[in-house]
Amino acid sequence: MALVPPHGGGALKPLLLTGAALEAEKKAAAGYKKVEITTREACDCFMMGIGAFTPLSGFMGEADWKGVCADMKMKSGVFWPIPITCSVGDEENVSVGDKLALNCDEFGGLVATMEVTEKYQIDKVFEAKNVFRTDDKEHPGVQKVYEQKKWNIGGPVKVLSEGGFPDEYKGIYATPAETRKIFEDAGWSRIAAFQTRNPLHRSHEFLCKIAVEVMDGVIIHQILGKLKAGDIPADVRVNAINALVDNYFVKNTIVTKGYPMEMRYGGPREALLHAVFRQNYGCSHLIVGRDHAGVGDYYGPFDAQKIFLEIPAGSLVIKNLNIDWTFHCYKCGGMASLRTCPHGKEDRLLLSGTMVRKTLSEGGDLPAEFSRPEVVKILQNYYQTLEEKVEIKLHGAATGDVKK
Amino acid sequence: MALVPPHGGGALKPLLLTGAALEAEKKAAAGYKKVEITTREACDCFMMGIGAFTPLSGFMGEADWKGVCADMKMKSGVFWPIPITCSVGDEENVSVGDKLALNCDEFGGLVATMEVTEKYQIDKVFEAKNVFRTDDKEHPGVQKVYEQKKWNIGGPVKVLSEGGFPDEYKGIYATPAETRKIFEDAGWSRIAAFQTRNPLHRSHEFLCKIAVEVMDGVIIHQILGKLKAGDIPADVRVNAINALVDNYFVKNTIVTKGYPMEMRYGGPREALLHAVFRQNYGCSHLIVGRDHAGVGDYYGPFDAQKIFLEIPAGSLVIKNLNIDWTFHCYKCGGMASLRTCPHGKEDRLLLSGTMVRKTLSEGGDLPAEFSRPEVVKILQNYYQTLEEKVEIKLHGAATGDVKK
Repeated sequence: MALVPPHGGGALKPLLLTGAALEAEKKAAAGYKKVEITTREACDCFMMGIGAFTPLSGFMGEADWKGVCADMKMKSGVFWPIPITCSVGDEENVSVGDKLALNCDEFGGLVATMEVTEKYQIDKVFEAKNVFRTDDKEHPGVQKVYEQKKWNIGGPVKVLSEGGFPDEYKGIYATPAETRKIFEDAGWSRIAAFQTRNPLHRSHEFLCKIAVEVMDGVIIHQILGKLKAGDIPADVRVNAINALVDNYFVKNTIVTKGYPMEMRYGGPREALLHAVFRQNYGCSHLIVGRDHAGVGDYYGPFDAQKIFLEIPAGSLVIKNLNIDWTFHCYKCGGMASLRTCPHGKEDRLLLSGTMVRKTLSEGGDLPAEFSRPEVVKILQNYYQTLEEKVEIKLHGAATGDVKK
Repeated sequence: MALVPPHGGGALKPLLLTGAALEAEKKAAAGYKKVEITTREACDCFMMGIGAFTPLSGFMGEADWKGVCADMKMKSGVFWPIPITCSVGDEENVSVGDKLALNCDEFGGLVATMEVTEKYQIDKVFEAKNVFRTDDKEHPGVQKVYEQKKWNIGGPVKVLSEGGFPDEYKGIYATPAETRKIFEDAGWSRIAAFQTRNPLHRSHEFLCKIAVEVMDGVIIHQILGKLKAGDIPADVRVNAINALVDNYFVKNTIVTKGYPMEMRYGGPREALLHAVFRQNYGCSHLIVGRDHAGVGDYYGPFDAQKIFLEIPAGSLVIKNLNIDWTFHCYKCGGMASLRTCPHGKEDRLLLSGTMVRKTLSEGGDLPAEFSRPEVVKILQNYYQTLEEKVEIKLHGAATGDVKK
């Protein structure tokens, strides 16, 4: 059995230059107009660079942007659920025909070059309402759209950097070509991706293990780009996930890797984007649990499952593997979901995120039925450090209004 | 989404007559030559009667018998893994062209009528070696083949009875048309069948629940025909399974039904037969665990999973859902399988069948991690009654050699 094909029907399309071509383009870029891009835009360049956003060849023009917002379809007819765009202001003075050196200081400078073939203005509320189902500026994904500059620019991109991810996340960072090779070498064709931006508690472990039971293998696939404030940083999460995998998974059933994107918190539409690039990574299935890629109360708990039924047949080769809300049930005597546990709330161990954070930051233990002790220890250490940082800040600021 | 089609590409083919046709055939049968058939043969008539053996139209002729033994293929080209045959001796004096009234006293008399179109002798060792992978006469399936009479007779069958199953197993017994309606009414198309001849302990519950997580629903599908000595009788098992389902499953995810066949204990080949008629019952998947339909040490623990890879593509529409060996692991803190538990034997609760029977017949409790208390209670009662029966027998016989 072969792996699923890349999205769009062709081969993987990595836009990252290497060798002499890379050196030549870097040299040429010195003569291009330099434009500072956001970390989100830079990360999208990295995703295009490694072929994770196959078949895109650059930032989207107006027709693609509009088709994607309205119908999740590009001009070419290929399915795509969230615009991949780049914006500039008047001050950058960009014109169609310009060649740009896209720079991002947070990623060490030059990220990519771009040939501007379009410059257009967008209706941000239209994009927000279509993609995020809300125009609330408090939504972290909507906020980023609203913060975009006046003009969107479209055109082909040549990627010149991987933004330091390969070194910073050695052993975790992987390109689609690399995971495809891992899967092929293992003889896998049915592979479920578990998307995560969080450390894994037992409910997440359970989702992965259900998939391990019925698939050839599972990839725990972590987002390595920026998250919203309050999320556990990627390096701590990587350690917590490694501790879990080392102690509670069978070696030849699981792969742990990461990808250089930023979360949009787009719920259903982001679940589809997660599916698109997982197909490029060689996965046949995407695990979709409760409130996938959601934030706050913007999405119904299973909207991200439902949207896979709403898109036209043939949009994706990868399939969604839906799993219901999971928890430990004392009457079941183990992990269960709303589909397998007939008991009541009082029999289930349910902890809120707030309660979990409070317990950990006070150095308290979480029940073994909620989280593995090896994971708890790493999270306690993290919150402890955070606590110290806050205290230092408090002393330094000599005010009491920094929230502990 | 529609249900899987019946096996062979056509409609369900129930051979059971009803109404006026039934009455007419019964009357005609009074004038046919009466032949006593075995319970295995009678049960195969019942399976044909309800369309579970679609597309068979009767007992197999020589070409079908040979093709099925050698290549799992009938003359028509349709896939079939185990011969469905009827045998007679010289004393029955059956000739080609005869019409027979097939009788089975254990099922209350007349079962079916048959028009004999072929009479042939078989190489029983050839059948045993091909179908059961052994010619050992201790194998309970092989034994039944060896006990067959001198001649096999083939020809179309009209079924006149359901053998009392609908009344004896009210609410459990179901025809393929009935389960198909249940699935359609529930809106299910992805349905996994769990085959069982045993009460369900937690390892079996776990297999079913994994399937519940990833399918629309699961049917616990019990064999209602005769078993080998030592197996728990069907009525006790039905009660034990009902107790489990009532207390530990979510109502709209599970269906409990049974079918009127006798076990062959044919391991891999029987797993394929189980798949064939589950497809007729409307199931898209058959759960295949460790040593499916096996007995003793005749088959490797996963031979029944492997054989699904060995049959020609397109043989079946139904798919196998393989699940590894399952157990409770104290370090995992719940049910697990060899695919999900990386720990050692010492961390796992493993009880032999012998130990379980011994504990239950002494009225002892099984650990809650092994079996649900509601199930244990029913099994304790059964073994207790069995004990009393043996004691009565002992006193009556006034000898000491009946094993307790």
